[in-house]
Amino acid sequence: MQKNGTTRTLQTVKDADGTVTSRVRRTVLPSGLRIVTEDMAGARSASIGVWVNVGSRDETPALHGCSHFLEHLLFKGTPERSAMEISVALDAVGGEFNAFTSKEYTVFHARVLDEDLGTAVDVLGDMVTASTITPFDVEAERDVILDEIAMHDDDPDDVVHNLFAHQAWGDSPLGRPIAGTEASITAMTRAQIHRFYRRHYRPDNMVVAVAGNVDHASVVRQVTKAFGRNDFLTGDATPTTPVQTEKARKVQPGEARTVRPLEQVNLVLGVKGLTRTDPRRYALGVLNTALGGGTSSRMFQEVREHRGLAYSVYSFASHHADAGIVGVSVGCLPGKYDAVLETVRGELAKVAAEGLTEEEVERGKGQLKGGLVLGLEDSGSRMSRIGKAELVYDELLTIDEVVGRIEAVTLEDVSALARELFTQPEMLAVVGPAAAAAG
Amino acid sequence: MQKNGTTRTLQTVKDADGTVTSRVRRTVLPSGLRIVTEDMAGARSASIGVWVNVGSRDETPALHGCSHFLEHLLFKGTPERSAMEISVALDAVGGEFNAFTSKEYTVFHARVLDEDLGTAVDVLGDMVTASTITPFDVEAERDVILDEIAMHDDDPDDVVHNLFAHQAWGDSPLGRPIAGTEASITAMTRAQIHRFYRRHYRPDNMVVAVAGNVDHASVVRQVTKAFGRNDFLTGDATPTTPVQTEKARKVQPGEARTVRPLEQVNLVLGVKGLTRTDPRRYALGVLNTALGGGTSSRMFQEVREHRGLAYSVYSFASHHADAGIVGVSVGCLPGKYDAVLETVRGELAKVAAEGLTEEEVERGKGQLKGGLVLGLEDSGSRMSRIGKAELVYDELLTIDEVVGRIEAVTLEDVSALARELFTQPEMLAVVGPAAAAAG
Repeated sequence: MQKNGTTRTLQTVKDADGTVTSRVRRTVLPSGLRIVTEDMAGARSASIGVWVNVGSRDETPALHGCSHFLEHLLFKGTPERSAMEISVALDAVGGEFNAFTSKEYTVFHARVLDEDLGTAVDVLGDMVTASTITPFDVEAERDVILDEIAMHDDDPDDVVHNLFAHQAWGDSPLGRPIAGTEASITAMTRAQIHRFYRRHYRPDNMVVAVAGNVDHASVVRQVTKAFGRNDFLTGDATPTTPVQTEKARKVQPGEARTVRPLEQVNLVLGVKGLTRTDPRRYALGVLNTALGGGTSSRMFQEVREHRGLAYSVYSFASHHADAGIVGVSVGCLPGKYDAVLETVRGELAKVAAEGLTEEEVERGKGQLKGGLVLGLEDSGSRMSRIGKAELVYDELLTIDEVVGRIEAVTLEDVSALARELFTQPEMLAVVGPAAAAAG
Repeated sequence: MQKNGTTRTLQTVKDADGTVTSRVRRTVLPSGLRIVTEDMAGARSASIGVWVNVGSRDETPALHGCSHFLEHLLFKGTPERSAMEISVALDAVGGEFNAFTSKEYTVFHARVLDEDLGTAVDVLGDMVTASTITPFDVEAERDVILDEIAMHDDDPDDVVHNLFAHQAWGDSPLGRPIAGTEASITAMTRAQIHRFYRRHYRPDNMVVAVAGNVDHASVVRQVTKAFGRNDFLTGDATPTTPVQTEKARKVQPGEARTVRPLEQVNLVLGVKGLTRTDPRRYALGVLNTALGGGTSSRMFQEVREHRGLAYSVYSFASHHADAGIVGVSVGCLPGKYDAVLETVRGELAKVAAEGLTEEEVERGKGQLKGGLVLGLEDSGSRMSRIGKAELVYDELLTIDEVVGRIEAVTLEDVSALARELFTQPEMLAVVGPAAAAAG
């Protein structure tokens, strides 16, 4: 590997006149840190994301919630900057600046005017590589996290989706809530969190993605400088390659119920889905769209339009490296619970038995393709596209390739998939007042 | 007035080379319907919004929730299209398509690829001008609305903000929740809703705003055709001019509490604010930003960073034609309630007594200006900017004019405003478990 890393152009997009409208380039530094950029003609903003390959599924029971706790702590200061100085640096330029933790990765991101990108890179590089994590900060932030857990616990939608994941994957890391529990957060020590930080925040486990009005070479220079603090980029390494499997891990069928004195009953009904790299995921995209992805979808039409059973009803498909779930989520008045459940089960059985219509497949494809193109105008979505692909997929498809895969989906593909998925044993999670939630 | 209406260019923006990058134009049709467009160089999408000058504050007690009920019903069909056909038309092209009702206006909006704008205009024109509102649809949608009210009632944040507005403005239209109540929605008849529709959905009470890769003249043609159904555009009228006042109406100081068995206590503490056209609103923007608008703000630093009292803490300023409120919103664990209240009150008293620092004012201005420019990349925000200005303001400022007004704010302006606002008697709304909420 060369001293300054290896650089490659991954994608070039031209418009009808042959003008280059976007170019995706990647540099792998000797330390294994990957930098991907997309320059967008005409953009005035730049979005940056630092993608770290760690999330709640990497946690032992004693460390449950550690990835998310750590995400908070990285905002608390470095030898160079206090928490206030970190905040000030980006607030002063009007940037949007935040972070999130998922089951599989942690992302720190900012959107700024192009001339302020250098500031954003410098602050993020400092935070991510040189956080001090003082005992005082751990204690103050522990209280903040306990409050955040209480807030999620007061949100019926969060409660029912966490319950559904727990039904599916049990007490395994995938089945646990990302933020941890009151017990795990209360017990976690500064030493445990700090070891977790050192183990996972390594250059070969990280991707810096930038999209907007940017120049790749200058981003590489800025990142090399900002992340080069304290010898963070010293040493040679090969980036961690995601371990992918096409077969989704088992789920645990059955019902889980939590009684809460709410006005509504919230329920999620679903089955085992597909992994992130399963080639049938494009067919699942079409199926999910037709089933519950818009106001013309079967669930919306049947549950809300025709029968007035609920305000919020949609289907979803979530994907992980080695697991996936597919389901329908509804909130309804307790008196409508039985009718909702019967309607949702009826629609799932019907699509399993009869598949979709040709018209639904075409509409679903149009909806997916339109959403894809509409999502490309904004530098934040482009940053997410290239950052996530680099971190968790084996490949970055061009937009044309994605459109091609959507177009290649046939009625038979979708109907076969619907039959396979929705004849599996179901999982049900219910949160609400006693009468409905008691089953 | 001419047969085809009067057209005027309101704003032209050029880049450094003199190339026009955006142009805002307005046409007023003889019927009083206003069409404003902004063509954005380089955009591939188009956003359209139909802005109707009606909201919950236009409702008598018997019609409480009617604007929002009506917003739902307009999706249910016309002589030309069923509810399903309305949904299909936009789902098929992948557009985002939705609506919302506020206290003062109702907006139907879509974002589509530029080539699909004609479809969006046609569907929206059909829905808004020719809705059939059948008795069957009223009954099915009544159930959906009752469920939506229950959903809001399970959301602690919605509950506390509704309680705060009720404390401020009592049983007046501004003090009531937008969606109505179970009683008002249950009692409302189809005839009442239909009369409300005919009274408020008139061309002179409506603005069609479009931004993106669009041509003004062709938008005017499309709108004239789509909204010309059933003689909707017949007759001459002058657009309804918003009635603005600079003096905000009185609020009712005091405390309101609702006991709920939640994990968190949610509280909103605030005072009377400014109207939408008050010239001091730019100073209030800076004050609000410094007080609780970002992670470097006083509330975030004091409540969350230094003391770990809460996860979510922010300040807000809401404006109406003749009213306004300013406040701080926090969710915390019950054991921290007293400390939160003391801290928030202490910070408000401090800013009233001492004002801000020069550095905070500069940072606040930078944050407002940065946010403004970052918000201009997307056709949806531009559509909202011109649509809302046309409907509810007397004037559409250029971005440079807005930046100029932000820059003109002085430390003295902000400090004087802080003193005036935060020495007024306070209003407090609290939702949470008995111990804290009982006061």
